[in-house]
Amino acid sequence: MNHKRIVVASLAIGLSSATLAQTIGKPEDQIRWRQSVMQTLGWSMGRIKANIDGTYNKDQVIQAANTIQALANSGSGALFTPGTDTGKGWRDTNVKPELFTNSAKLKEVGMAYNKEANEMAKVAATGDSAAVKAQFGNLGKSCKGCHDEFRKEEKK
Amino acid sequence: MNHKRIVVASLAIGLSSATLAQTIGKPEDQIRWRQSVMQTLGWSMGRIKANIDGTYNKDQVIQAANTIQALANSGSGALFTPGTDTGKGWRDTNVKPELFTNSAKLKEVGMAYNKEANEMAKVAATGDSAAVKAQFGNLGKSCKGCHDEFRKEEKK
Repeated sequence: MNHKRIVVASLAIGLSSATLAQTIGKPEDQIRWRQSVMQTLGWSMGRIKANIDGTYNKDQVIQAANTIQALANSGSGALFTPGTDTGKGWRDTNVKPELFTNSAKLKEVGMAYNKEANEMAKVAATGDSAAVKAQFGNLGKSCKGCHDEFRKEEKK
Repeated sequence: MNHKRIVVASLAIGLSSATLAQTIGKPEDQIRWRQSVMQTLGWSMGRIKANIDGTYNKDQVIQAANTIQALANSGSGALFTPGTDTGKGWRDTNVKPELFTNSAKLKEVGMAYNKEANEMAKVAATGDSAAVKAQFGNLGKSCKGCHDEFRKEEKK
């Protein structure tokens, strides 16, 4: 991947957007918003899975995939400002401090998520449930790639 | 507006999607997800406002407007299943019971929100900050239209 593509992909997920545009919110707002974005992603992934496992509804899968795509391109990385490795939004943050220091790995997993989310929306539009199932697997791996690196075990 | 357009707009915001596709989640999941969608909308609205009030960054406004558009077309209305007029997600729901009974009003305010969110994304793409400011006002009114009818006063 050439330099330009790396920069574009990094900007899409917002890793550097604080240098381009204003970051809003107090730390507790940012943590609550990013937890909300993650939950909205979780809802959307759950909907796609329900369609794969149950009766396939093309329109619902498109709704969910478009939501995931928009969030993956929303610049939500800007909500991880330095100093928010601890703090409470809806609940205590589960982020690992490494997210704020290992920028190379963050870029890698962030770009993978961005790529797979964009592809998910394209595949959903076709209505091909087998292709959706395959791409859902790829997207899920990209989610896990970031969670494994940068999210603490969920507290139950 | 003709009947077909009403049906299409209603489906877009998910008022009837439970009849088309599986609804997922327990009541507490649905409440937490809809609260998360609302927070993600609030974050996105705040970002657009910060750009209107401060230095205008076209890309950030597009990111936020596209997020709002995707959420307005996500079918999140399906998260308001009967019986979820009480219950706790991240916190106790603020929904008024009228949302589950006044379907005519719900359709009216839902369609307005959908229309203004789609328009917001179109206007954001132009990069015309004055037009964005005007459309932000229209979109904000459509949010308020639903909140006034169907959301209890926020508990501070």
